[in-house]
Amino acid sequence: MKIALDAMGGDNAPSAIVAGALEAVETLGVEVLLFGVEAAMRAELPGGQSPAGVKLVDCTEIIGMHDEPGTSVRTRKDASVVRAAEAVRDGIADAMVGAGNTGATMASALLRFGRIKGVARPAIGVPIPVPFASPHLLVDGGATVDCKPEWLLQFAQLGRAYAKVRLGIDSPTVGLLSNGEEAGKGDELRKLAFSLLEGTPGFVGNVEGRDLMTGKPDVIVTDGFTGNVAIKTIEGALKAAAGLVFTILDSNDEAKAAAKVVAPLLLQGVADYLDPDTVGGAVLLGVDGVCVISHGSSSARAISSSIALAAECVRGEIVESMKWAIAEDPGAATNKVMEDQHAS
Amino acid sequence: MKIALDAMGGDNAPSAIVAGALEAVETLGVEVLLFGVEAAMRAELPGGQSPAGVKLVDCTEIIGMHDEPGTSVRTRKDASVVRAAEAVRDGIADAMVGAGNTGATMASALLRFGRIKGVARPAIGVPIPVPFASPHLLVDGGATVDCKPEWLLQFAQLGRAYAKVRLGIDSPTVGLLSNGEEAGKGDELRKLAFSLLEGTPGFVGNVEGRDLMTGKPDVIVTDGFTGNVAIKTIEGALKAAAGLVFTILDSNDEAKAAAKVVAPLLLQGVADYLDPDTVGGAVLLGVDGVCVISHGSSSARAISSSIALAAECVRGEIVESMKWAIAEDPGAATNKVMEDQHAS
Repeated sequence: MKIALDAMGGDNAPSAIVAGALEAVETLGVEVLLFGVEAAMRAELPGGQSPAGVKLVDCTEIIGMHDEPGTSVRTRKDASVVRAAEAVRDGIADAMVGAGNTGATMASALLRFGRIKGVARPAIGVPIPVPFASPHLLVDGGATVDCKPEWLLQFAQLGRAYAKVRLGIDSPTVGLLSNGEEAGKGDELRKLAFSLLEGTPGFVGNVEGRDLMTGKPDVIVTDGFTGNVAIKTIEGALKAAAGLVFTILDSNDEAKAAAKVVAPLLLQGVADYLDPDTVGGAVLLGVDGVCVISHGSSSARAISSSIALAAECVRGEIVESMKWAIAEDPGAATNKVMEDQHAS
Repeated sequence: MKIALDAMGGDNAPSAIVAGALEAVETLGVEVLLFGVEAAMRAELPGGQSPAGVKLVDCTEIIGMHDEPGTSVRTRKDASVVRAAEAVRDGIADAMVGAGNTGATMASALLRFGRIKGVARPAIGVPIPVPFASPHLLVDGGATVDCKPEWLLQFAQLGRAYAKVRLGIDSPTVGLLSNGEEAGKGDELRKLAFSLLEGTPGFVGNVEGRDLMTGKPDVIVTDGFTGNVAIKTIEGALKAAAGLVFTILDSNDEAKAAAKVVAPLLLQGVADYLDPDTVGGAVLLGVDGVCVISHGSSSARAISSSIALAAECVRGEIVESMKWAIAEDPGAATNKVMEDQHAS
């Protein structure tokens, strides 16, 4: 198992990325191909030497967090993230992991892997934390912000295929994120998507924002715009709640004394269930290869977890699983026609 | 100051509604007109008598939480919520408050008050809690789920007019909820809305989901679909966080002992900053009258707060303020033309 890793992407690159690679090689028994500026990567290695299982691939270009994704990927052909995607396309690596510019990581995978046949648009499968339980999956977390109803149907199919591997569930349930549970609720996009989803495997109907973080259903489908707002809203709400709790624990002497007992337990609870490093990376669905997107502030542990997830996706054959899900769908041909009609 | 109150709307109606009315009359010095089934309302009054400042208005119909809003409001002309809206239209009351079926409350206000001249669609201004600070306002919280870009511009104008009264700020700042801070981020709707908002008073650019609950900017503008998802996502995230905290505080003897000190402080913090009863009701913006929408599970205290908010809106002349905001806008005439073109 060989994982291609963009060593130059992320707030803590390349140090946290290289450290994560070393951790993964040691604990997971995978090989890691590190793509980046060789001197910079080497500076992070003990004695400047890459240990067994780690291979450095020198790249002359980098795509930064604020670079325009599409243009950067098209013009910087020697960028670390682009080269990592190429390694997967060329069969040199089994999967790629990136913690840098999300748009550029997606664009690299999309352009180099290509889409799975019949897939109109890619989607990001993002794990949403659920206290005392496994995360559930939000699809799309931000890959495709303007969606057609039939693309949401495909996101459900891709999401289910992924959930089978990620959550280890035979027949994952799917809900459509809407502004009410009743069937008639939603904007035009949701109403049309609902009618396409109705009767499809696992579909349980509309769910609401308050169902996020409950773990029901296994997969929640939405467009990439709404999905991105929802994920970041959760992030903000949890941060605000944590700020409130820890300020109160520091508010007087009695609270401070009690905090000595409860603060470590609370921090452990957060680490166990809410920390993005625990919840895990996002996976780009609908492309012909495995691409794990780790968050921008990834620590070494987050990178190692994302490498583990990438390996799990390869072993679980999620790409094959997605191909089957799309090919099996009797509506796929229709979708293709509709897609072509809608294409502008 | 006379407030028309739908006594039959809400999970705890009519008991909590009547109790809230009594509390408001006593503490706020307002008069309340209670609309509902007289016998049911009377059963909640001490000795079956309405005290000074409370007037019962008998209605023969009710619109339930699961009734279809538009049809119900059109056909049940003697429904309590419809009659409450009529009282405002006819100058018998200064404002209305409802905790029942949100769609029906909105539709009653919209159909009976009418829209402010130049306003294409109404929006709900929803207060978003901010720990240790005043809430900020999300517009639209769910009134108009399918939006045109120019309607989002109007939501910003309406939201600022309301924020001046609600937050007591002379020149409120406005952000557009998007999937990234950069100017180019967003779906088609956001990109077009951004270009309309650019350079308008108070506009600070795009904001993200994680900016909700920080209090910056004062007004956050979005379509009613995304707004509704965001509000309910906050609700779910805070509930999940509270579940995690209180489960941990109950997890072992040492934690339980510490919880005796910190649990009351935490509950007080939640009550002070996160409880919808404290944060306050939502206001329907863009209609020619004051309509406060209290949440479905409103307690007597929530109703009393919503009545206080309604009175504050009347005293602060928010309807006049919104009329000025729309009339002053040099683009209003253009919007009107665009609205007519878009009308289906």
